[in-house]
Amino acid sequence: MGNTEILYGYHPVLEAIKAGRRKMIAVYIAAQKPSRRTHDIEQAAAAESIRLEWVADSRFRSLAGTGLHQGICARVGPYDVLEFSALLAQANHSDSFFLLLDSIVDPQNLGALIRSALCVGMDGVVIPKDRSASPTPAVSRASAGAMEHIRLSRVTNMTATIQRLKQAGVWVYGLDKYAPEIIYRCDLKGAVALVVGGEAQGIRPLVKNSCDRLISIPQKCELDSLNASAAGAVAMYEVFRQRLESGGQVCS
Amino acid sequence: MGNTEILYGYHPVLEAIKAGRRKMIAVYIAAQKPSRRTHDIEQAAAAESIRLEWVADSRFRSLAGTGLHQGICARVGPYDVLEFSALLAQANHSDSFFLLLDSIVDPQNLGALIRSALCVGMDGVVIPKDRSASPTPAVSRASAGAMEHIRLSRVTNMTATIQRLKQAGVWVYGLDKYAPEIIYRCDLKGAVALVVGGEAQGIRPLVKNSCDRLISIPQKCELDSLNASAAGAVAMYEVFRQRLESGGQVCS
Repeated sequence: MGNTEILYGYHPVLEAIKAGRRKMIAVYIAAQKPSRRTHDIEQAAAAESIRLEWVADSRFRSLAGTGLHQGICARVGPYDVLEFSALLAQANHSDSFFLLLDSIVDPQNLGALIRSALCVGMDGVVIPKDRSASPTPAVSRASAGAMEHIRLSRVTNMTATIQRLKQAGVWVYGLDKYAPEIIYRCDLKGAVALVVGGEAQGIRPLVKNSCDRLISIPQKCELDSLNASAAGAVAMYEVFRQRLESGGQVCS
Repeated sequence: MGNTEILYGYHPVLEAIKAGRRKMIAVYIAAQKPSRRTHDIEQAAAAESIRLEWVADSRFRSLAGTGLHQGICARVGPYDVLEFSALLAQANHSDSFFLLLDSIVDPQNLGALIRSALCVGMDGVVIPKDRSASPTPAVSRASAGAMEHIRLSRVTNMTATIQRLKQAGVWVYGLDKYAPEIIYRCDLKGAVALVVGGEAQGIRPLVKNSCDRLISIPQKCELDSLNASAAGAVAMYEVFRQRLESGGQVCS
């Protein structure tokens, strides 16, 4: 089948069809499980003239490679990773907003962060090529299909990427639980990049040193801090909130 | 072994020892994997005079019932679920703060929500007895041990619980993605309970009708909204932020 992969689950398949970014080779639906969801998928595939096959339930698990398929799969072309320069070029407005994920290794966390990023209208998400979960079908599923829409770039050198953002006039804020400056005391309007570090160690030291400022999310307990995806969501929404306060729009 | 269970993983075992709420029968450490973490656990167990056993690595998987044990387990007494009246009685101050989780069925989401709740200093978390994930060792692990500290109650009737909160002077806000009032336009100071609904359908209709007000988290895309644990974290932190703005304390 060449350079293709299998997306699985309702949201990833539906959002891939809607996004129209991947080559859609075929959509597979479990023959014995018609539902509102399979009906939605059938209609979406028909509207885009994508080949649809009803497949015996017994074949689904091996097709998806997991039990989490909800009776819906698609054979698709590779995920459309963007060059960082393309990401930067299309976001040269005064309130452009980027998320840089340094060493997020858990596909569930990566998916959840991408989902929140799409909700706040991020211009792009950047992950490193090494020491990071990749944009796999598992991440697409964890993102409820948001990965199919988000503009994602993979870079070799996160520090160099931060320098390029700074040169483009973007302020780069690193989330660091030990930073004395709390996020709510910080003016986050204007062009902003947020850096969120990995589950275990946070942002790597060299990456941390490249940030314009380090900020923390306050907490009221001694526990080992918020998890990466919750911290990312809270920080992204604080940026979004400050923009709304200063007259930004919610497209609903 | 009677009414006991096995906690697994570094954070759940460490936090259970620190919290001192459960009976700690024995702590087990994988004999061939000494590390900083096993050393921490060893010291914490010794400080509380808890029996410590070094166990062959090969026995760990069956002991934990999962591979996610990090070479650390403990046999513990049952989780200390509180009566709702006890929760309410100890939180009759002017900025008491509760989280009500209606139909969260995914243990990962329940754990993540409990972790965020502890971070913002919640007075209590309430879950229904039916149609909800339970406070199992898997949830303790997903909460990074926060479940061992949080004050948690399980109730039969969420609607009646909301009535009791209202009678106690607590304002009850339900998160609903279709609510026209966005959370940032809402004064969330004073005694507050937040209701977060399940992954699939949100808050059940009867529970929704009992809330004082429904509020939404704004978003900039058409996607199927934030996931339950991200939405919960964003909403809890908006309450926390408003309290900080009006002079609340962060204990760090």
